[in-house]
Amino acid sequence: MRILHTTPKNDGFYMPAEFSKHYGCILIWPHRRDSWQNGAYAARKAFAQLIAAISKSEKVIVCARYEDYDSAREMLPPEVRVIEMSSDDSWARDVAPTFVTDGKEIRGIDWGFNAWGGLYDGLYFPWDKDNKLAKKMCDQIDKDCYDFRDFILEGGSIHTDGEGTLLTTEECLLSKGRNPEMTKEAIEQKLSDTLGIKKVIWLKRGIYHDETNGHIDNICAFTAPGEAVLAWTDDKNDPQYAISKGCLDILESSTDAAGRKITVHKLPLPKPVHITEEECEGLDNMDGEPTRTAGERLAASYVNFYISNGAVICPQFGDDNDAQAVRILQSLFPDREVIGIYSRDILIGGGNIHCITQQIPYFER
Amino acid sequence: MRILHTTPKNDGFYMPAEFSKHYGCILIWPHRRDSWQNGAYAARKAFAQLIAAISKSEKVIVCARYEDYDSAREMLPPEVRVIEMSSDDSWARDVAPTFVTDGKEIRGIDWGFNAWGGLYDGLYFPWDKDNKLAKKMCDQIDKDCYDFRDFILEGGSIHTDGEGTLLTTEECLLSKGRNPEMTKEAIEQKLSDTLGIKKVIWLKRGIYHDETNGHIDNICAFTAPGEAVLAWTDDKNDPQYAISKGCLDILESSTDAAGRKITVHKLPLPKPVHITEEECEGLDNMDGEPTRTAGERLAASYVNFYISNGAVICPQFGDDNDAQAVRILQSLFPDREVIGIYSRDILIGGGNIHCITQQIPYFER
Repeated sequence: MRILHTTPKNDGFYMPAEFSKHYGCILIWPHRRDSWQNGAYAARKAFAQLIAAISKSEKVIVCARYEDYDSAREMLPPEVRVIEMSSDDSWARDVAPTFVTDGKEIRGIDWGFNAWGGLYDGLYFPWDKDNKLAKKMCDQIDKDCYDFRDFILEGGSIHTDGEGTLLTTEECLLSKGRNPEMTKEAIEQKLSDTLGIKKVIWLKRGIYHDETNGHIDNICAFTAPGEAVLAWTDDKNDPQYAISKGCLDILESSTDAAGRKITVHKLPLPKPVHITEEECEGLDNMDGEPTRTAGERLAASYVNFYISNGAVICPQFGDDNDAQAVRILQSLFPDREVIGIYSRDILIGGGNIHCITQQIPYFER
Repeated sequence: MRILHTTPKNDGFYMPAEFSKHYGCILIWPHRRDSWQNGAYAARKAFAQLIAAISKSEKVIVCARYEDYDSAREMLPPEVRVIEMSSDDSWARDVAPTFVTDGKEIRGIDWGFNAWGGLYDGLYFPWDKDNKLAKKMCDQIDKDCYDFRDFILEGGSIHTDGEGTLLTTEECLLSKGRNPEMTKEAIEQKLSDTLGIKKVIWLKRGIYHDETNGHIDNICAFTAPGEAVLAWTDDKNDPQYAISKGCLDILESSTDAAGRKITVHKLPLPKPVHITEEECEGLDNMDGEPTRTAGERLAASYVNFYISNGAVICPQFGDDNDAQAVRILQSLFPDREVIGIYSRDILIGGGNIHCITQQIPYFER
């Protein structure tokens, strides 16, 4: 693996869309006891169900800590590769490399990672193992790695259509805990240099009470060039309504890099989901303080799906809207099977299916 | 990766010779402070020189502990893959899988490992990380793994000609710290079932003062079917003389699995090598006791070479016989370049070039 200090754009590389063909997918076996209740017991079952679904149509590589290797190996299908890899938590979307392609070869990008806000408003300390994971994953799959560790970015804060358009939120990319010294224009330039982006569409905020400072991947996602889904509620008394309405207004008044209007498909939200006292009791404290409080609202959204080669795997919450979310996604992805997975035990950790996956694009060499 | 409980022999698999075509080679980045002097500083330089030489003609995968990844990555060429992997020490020959092939596909064997003798006369405790490495390496390269953890065996204690003959020593395979409940016949049966061996040639002992209980790979190795090199001294006052003479007598009176007489090439030993006081001072104590004593004789031998696709890489000790050893090996491997590497800093750890390498045979799929 070469460490590269050039820019993908100058080298002819760009970030493909998630709905482009994959080589595979990276996940991290959950272990952190203040993120995942009961020693991650329930989370591991949910991860295993997801991994089995993804591995039907692409290669899955699961990172496990030394002490968790046997647990992962035993719970996962044989076609899944389990590799030893240290991590602070299990959010592959945010700590694994973002991959770029020139159409034949892929390379990884190693962004800086500071646990969603560093010492300003990050979620845990330290985060050194997570921050080292991207480079090591490139080594794992024997692909060169761009060093952009001086720029803080998580994969969950960006979505691209693979044709030059990027979706993100101001709440996250302009947050004080990321790159406070950079202007909006400087950030756009960085996204252009690194991902080949020609047009950034800035939504204001992400899902209400999303502790990632409003990652885009929980509220809005491209389903095709010129098409996006948006998390939606009709309940005007819900603080989420104004947020989603603000996103809709921006999307409907925007054009993408190719000059197209964007067709927005509303994806209904489940009713607000709150963590129970029993669930909170299953979480270790962090530095003597609980990480969650009983009754706290969790950032549940169907937008947090993963697109594999053969499927779209969508969170389910035991909500009346579960089936409707699957139906809408199935209409938008007619060539893939939409699979719902009950993911409350992932949600409790602070994210969902998209947050715990990172695709590796297909490559010829 | 599937965990297999059948036998390679029944599945049509056997262990190919080291001089057959390789996919690559596995090594482990040294770190153990009671094995490698001065925090493995000098050892790492020697490992890096060896790895660079091997990587010229085959893929090299280097296992590094989490905390050593950056050191390995920075000291090694970019074409080498560095992966995170916990280990107790750095003897890939003995802890990485032994691979078997059916001519197209390869599979790994996960032997039991107990640090060369377990609680009887093993060299360190615990050894759990080493014992878990073989299975995890199979997962790394996405190859199925035979579970033979109930049989204690190190790769350094066997050499095969790839045509059904295996060389080993009674000192090691019949040692009380390995499989004391098994008869010689039962061990032969196990080598047959696992490696496809039809004929075992039992030498009595390995190199004088070799702390592995006389591993074969330090005293005798096949260079081709029907041809072997034997570590040799003409000094009848050296305790090594009787050992080598005993081996010679057995070899010259043996035939291999194909019924051939074995041509033995004497490879001269260097003059006895002793560890210095300064070298000992660079080693941490183990459980309050020094691991080596100044003046202790080290098991130096030119037989501990590694055969890569394009080269034979041979230990050098700054001895008058260094050049002669290279010349003899060059005459036996006319199609490969014989490269000498000064390896005193590996020898201090207790082994040499062959001990820290494990080949991955070539595979088609």
